[in-house]
Parts: sequence; C-alpha cells; structure tokens
Amino acid sequence: VRSSNWMGCVFGGCREPAVAIAAAVAAETGGAPQASIIGGQQRTDVAGAAFLNCLSSSILAFDDTHLATVTHPTGPVAAALFAFSEKQAISGEDFLNALALGIEIQCRMSNVLLLPPANPNLGLYVTGLTGPIGAAVALGRVLGLDEQRMVWAIGLAATQAAGFRETHGTMVAGFVPAHAARSGVSAAMLAARGFTCSDCTLESAKGFVGVFSSDADPGRAVEGLGHRFELLSNTYKPYPCGIVIHPSIDACLDIANRLDCNAVIAVAALRVHPLALTLTGQREPKTPLEAQVSLFHWAAAALLHRSAGLPEMQQTCIDDPAIAPLRARIVATPDPALGRDQAIAEVELTSGATLCAHVEHARGSLSRPMTDPELDTKFTAQTCPRLGRDRTERLLSLCRDISRLQSVGSDIAAVWTE
Amino acid sequence: VRSSNWMGCVFGGCREPAVAIAAAVAAETGGAPQASIIGGQQRTDVAGAAFLNCLSSSILAFDDTHLATVTHPTGPVAAALFAFSEKQAISGEDFLNALALGIEIQCRMSNVLLLPPANPNLGLYVTGLTGPIGAAVALGRVLGLDEQRMVWAIGLAATQAAGFRETHGTMVAGFVPAHAARSGVSAAMLAARGFTCSDCTLESAKGFVGVFSSDADPGRAVEGLGHRFELLSNTYKPYPCGIVIHPSIDACLDIANRLDCNAVIAVAALRVHPLALTLTGQREPKTPLEAQVSLFHWAAAALLHRSAGLPEMQQTCIDDPAIAPLRARIVATPDPALGRDQAIAEVELTSGATLCAHVEHARGSLSRPMTDPELDTKFTAQTCPRLGRDRTERLLSLCRDISRLQSVGSDIAAVWTE
Repeated sequence: VRSSNWMGCVFGGCREPAVAIAAAVAAETGGAPQASIIGGQQRTDVAGAAFLNCLSSSILAFDDTHLATVTHPTGPVAAALFAFSEKQAISGEDFLNALALGIEIQCRMSNVLLLPPANPNLGLYVTGLTGPIGAAVALGRVLGLDEQRMVWAIGLAATQAAGFRETHGTMVAGFVPAHAARSGVSAAMLAARGFTCSDCTLESAKGFVGVFSSDADPGRAVEGLGHRFELLSNTYKPYPCGIVIHPSIDACLDIANRLDCNAVIAVAALRVHPLALTLTGQREPKTPLEAQVSLFHWAAAALLHRSAGLPEMQQTCIDDPAIAPLRARIVATPDPALGRDQAIAEVELTSGATLCAHVEHARGSLSRPMTDPELDTKFTAQTCPRLGRDRTERLLSLCRDISRLQSVGSDIAAVWTE
Repeated sequence: VRSSNWMGCVFGGCREPAVAIAAAVAAETGGAPQASIIGGQQRTDVAGAAFLNCLSSSILAFDDTHLATVTHPTGPVAAALFAFSEKQAISGEDFLNALALGIEIQCRMSNVLLLPPANPNLGLYVTGLTGPIGAAVALGRVLGLDEQRMVWAIGLAATQAAGFRETHGTMVAGFVPAHAARSGVSAAMLAARGFTCSDCTLESAKGFVGVFSSDADPGRAVEGLGHRFELLSNTYKPYPCGIVIHPSIDACLDIANRLDCNAVIAVAALRVHPLALTLTGQREPKTPLEAQVSLFHWAAAALLHRSAGLPEMQQTCIDDPAIAPLRARIVATPDPALGRDQAIAEVELTSGATLCAHVEHARGSLSRPMTDPELDTKFTAQTCPRLGRDRTERLLSLCRDISRLQSVGSDIAAVWTE
C-alpha cells in the first residue's frame, strides 16, 4: 500500500473546478474544523474532509486501480482514515493496518459483485458500491468497534452504496468515490454510537448482493481471507485517464517514438479489450472530464505529443486543431482475445508506410508495475505546483516512512500548516 | 398535500433512540446553525437538519404512503424544503408548490421502478431510491435552477439513490429516507453552483433505471405530467406500522370490538395480500422497530388491546406476556386475490365460537381516507407531549394555513424558539 500515490493524486486534483464547487458548498455548510481540505486553508468536519479529499484524488482519474473489477480502492479508504487521523491521533502502523484492511475488504466485495458467478450490470460504478464498505471497515478498526458494531457499520455503509457508470465524463465521476468516503465515515460514526442495522445487509437477497446482482456469491468475500491478499492486485496508473485506455497509450507511444518528425498519420487502427470501448468509448470529448473516458483522445495525443501526462488532459490539448481531427481517424475494434492490459496498434502513414505495436502488458499493470522512482516522479509532478520543492520532498518522505509516524494526521498536516 | 401530517410525525419520532444517536453525531460534526433539529434546541446546517428531521418523521413508520409502490414520499421532500426555508425565506405558496412538485416526481419515479413493465427486485427500498430525486427537484425549484442545473440536480440525486428492504426492523429503516433527504439537498446545492452530471442519469441503461431494473420504462415518469397527479394517490396512516399491516389491524379491531371481556382466543387466521408477508412477516419482534414490520404483533395487539396506536409499539406491549403467545397463535396466508388494502380475519375462541371480519378497504386507504378531525387527533397525539397544548394548537393552525405564510421556516420555527 503506497500512501504517497493517493496523497499525490489529492494534490494533483485539488484545484479542479469540481473541487472548488464542492469546497464552496462545504464552506456554506460549515462543519467543525477537524480536518484539512488538502491543498487549501479551509478545514471542515471529518466526513466533509473525507469527501473533499477523495474528490480531489479521484477527479483526474489518476488514482489506483484493481483491474479485475475496475475498482479504485484507495480513495474512499485513505480519505476517510486521513481525515479522521487529523481529529484523533493514529500511529502510522495502525493507519497502515486499517488502510490495508479497508482496501482488502473493498476489493473482495468488488469481486463478489463483478467476478463470476456474478453477471454484472455494466452500469455498476463499483467504487461507489464497495467504497463505503472499505472506508467504514477501516474507520471501524481505528475506532475499535466490537463485532456487532462493525457489522452495523458495514451494513450502514452498504446502505449508502450508490453510483452509475453513466456519469463518467462529468464531475460526478469524482463525486461517486467521494460520496463513498463520506458514507463510510458516517456509517462508522453512527455504528460506534449504537445505530442499529441488519446483521446480513450484505448477503441478503433483499440487501446489497441481492439488489446489485442476481447471481453473485457473497461467499467469495471471505475465501482465503487472511491468506490470499486481493490488495496485492492493486496497481498505480502512469497516465491520468481510464485504466482500460492505458495499453492503447503504450502502443501509440511506442509507434510515436519511431515516427519521423514529418510523418503524417493517415489512419490508426487499434485492437482493444472490449471493456475499453464500453467504458472509454467517448468519440468527441469536449472537456477534460470527457477526455478521461476517451480512448480516441489519448491515442491521438500519444501519437502526436509522444506523451500522455497531465498536459494531455488539459483543455488546450483537447481543443488542439491537430489532435481533434486525428481522433476521428482512429478506429478501435474490440477483441475478446486480448487481456485488459493488452492492445495492438497499427498506424498507416500518408507515405504508405505502416508501423505496428503489440502491448503484452501495459505500463503500470500487475506484470509491469510502476517503479519507485516512477511513482516518486508522479508524486512530485502533482504536488510540487501546490507545495513547492522543499515541502514536496518533506511530504514524500513522510509518506514513505508513514509506518514510523506517531500521529499520522498531525505529522503530515504539519507540512502544509506550518 | 398535508404538511401537518409530516410535522406531527417529526414530533412523534424526535425522541427515539435512533434520532438521539444521529443528533449526537451531528453535534460532533458541527455544521452552521441554519435550521432546527425539530424537537430540541440543537441546530445544524440545512442538509444535516433535513437528515435529522426526516429520520424523526420516518422512524415510527407513521408517515404517508403511496401504496402502489409503498413509497413514503413526503419525508425526504418536506424535510429538505423545511430545513432550507429556515435558512432562506420561502412563502407558503412557493413552499407548497415545491412540495407538491417534489412528491409528484418522486411518486412518478417510484412508478417507473415498481410498476409494470418493471419486474422489481423485492430488496428495493424505493423511498431511498426516489426520495433524493423528489427532494432535489423541490429544492431546485425554490432555488430557481435553470433547466441544465435541474437536470444535473436530478442526476446528482439519482447518483445517491440507496437502501434495501433488508434493513427494515432496524434503525436503518429510518436512516434510508433521512439519507434521501440529505442527498437531495446536497444534489441541489452542488448543481446550483455548476457541479456537472450526465444529462441522462435517470433513463440510461448504465444509469438509475438500468441498474435498479432490467425492464422498467422511464417514459412512465412523464405520461400525463401536469394533467394526472400521482400525488393524489398518497395516503395518511392511522396506525404506526407498515402500511400493508393496516387492513389486518382493521379486521382484528372489528372482531375485538365484538368480543366478550372473558373470551379467550384459540387461534386467529388471516388472509392477506402477499406483499404483507413479504414486507412485514416478522414472527417474533424483539424491539419496537422490529414490531413495525410484524403483522403478527399488530394483529395480536389489536385483538387484545382493541387499539393500534403509539402505545402498541412500545417495548412494554411487545414484551407483554399476553401478546407474545397470541402472536404465535396467528396464522397468515397470502391470497393474491386480495388487494393491498384488503384482509380477512377469522378468530376461533376456546369456547368454539368463531368471528369473522372482511375488510374491503383499510382505514386510511384511498377509498377510505382519514378525515380532517382524525388527522388533527393524530397530529396532537404526537406533538402535544413535546410542545404542550397551546403550542401544539398554534403549530397545527400554522400548518393548516401554510399557504398564507410569508416565510414558512421562520413563521413555523417561532413556535418552538419563542
């Protein structure tokens, strides 16, 4: 579990318009100044700060991914825990234990809804459904809930499970995980005081599994619990866009790096895992948020810019008069024989020459994970514009050494409050 | 639309343990003191007050019901509007218009999910799914949202749709509508400031209708809109328990009133609409919340107490050594030929005599609505213990004349703040 990836993404997203709007609503709402809205001076209550900080970490689609279920597990759990740790001291060790537990349970519940025997509805925004559970479990652990109250906390969290894939490409793509973080906090706080819930909210036919799936097996959630760790399948993104776009980006970057400066692309043909078109088939993105779910935008940007980073998600790149027409000359074909981390690209130049690239495993995938230096570079690129170089270095080293901190919230928040 | 029924239910529920717990969490959370937590001195922000007041109005299962869908529409809408009206002046006329609009849209969306061609999952807690939409529409109206922002508000509300029938019989039965109220407020406030959402969150296959139903027709929502008023099918409850129990209560009260004082019941056989057993089949309730969904408890209480009011939902009645064994001697058989407001009871005495009752339409049903004096009595029974007789009278007359108020929130809150 790398807390630095989450914290870097918070800084990366904290100045986005969606966050500014939500922070204005939080200011109007009030809330005891218990925790930081990271990236500014405003403070609010734990649930509100968890919401805002998870919105920041999610809004650029740059956070982590459990690829088998396309869950982004760290946001809701880390945002809930970090906000709480500013109100009540938690040691680094306890923080990491709770973070790992929340992510593990969240990914396992995502498996229940998304993997066989479940035949999932494509509209399920799984981070919104299982995020509240992960956050509530993590917070329940640091609150020391007994078994009955932990069961209620999980039930209260599941009761707030919500969100649809339809809203991808809008600010609500970030709202859903943020709402999950807030819901998990609310669930744990209510359960801690004895707010009752059913003992089988998750597994009942009239509960979580029954409503969100007609064929899921809730027993999957506990298979090998404590022995097999689902969180080891969590990965970190090199590019700020939908994870299923990444193999296509790699293929296009590979080709772009072999192109002459004056080569002109006639047409680019991609073969992709079918989910890539289902989730990221946006043909003509108009905004950075729409571009996050546009395979075509990122393929075009990678081919022309030879890069796929934060600049490629800016409005200027989306409106670029060279990029937009190239998006229209990209054809993408679903190929069920490909894995989710695979893609094949074939580019034909106006000269008649063709170049091919076959990506076996995308950068950042489980088989080809981002290295520590790459993750540090990603952290710095997102954090430095907000904190400057010295404080960025200090924050990175605190995140790296989080297990040794006495009090995570105050030790880390000191970086931006001192 | 009777605002007094909702307000009375708020006072009826405001001292329940679930409300005390949630109010303690609200106190810990803070929140600008914009609106009353009705029934006490504490104030909090609009979204928090909407949550608390809807929890109060829902927790005794005494609020209103749209029987075709078993939606309780007024709670989320009225709680959101009333809390907002304490922050920003709204005339009685505007308040009523927004309340009617919110309830209308909520009931119509419930029809989409629950009525043919939809084949609904029995776990759907429809008030939690459509309540956020009703509340957001009502608040969006008083905020004067333009069409685009109203669409976003509805989408943000649908994004927070949540809750399962599994949690009935626990405090979460009240949490779900309360969460709907809060979600509606949050949706309208974010949309008002330009937080974007999809334009087809409701009707998309990857959105609200697609996730919560495989066969619903979203077009139902707008059939005859402005001509046919679904809110005219809303009804008020004479008994504080699940609406599908009511015809059995009427049948048992009818028989009880014909019994000799020393008659001893050997067995009672009920024939009920199948939904009555699905939703309220709790055999051995241990708590007042479980009793709300126990057909058997209310039949036994009605037979022995000749009454089915607030005293019959108390723990003392649930634990009564005469009531508990009688619950075990009640047999209930589902009969698809019966309507939801119908029931047949046959009671056999130890003397061998039998008494029958056939209820064609339950008290409080559309065909036999509660009268104004009955509703006033219900209001007074719930409000008087909190406010005393004089202020109860004053509050009732303000609710009756709400259309003439200049500023609903301040005019009404004056009853408990002066």
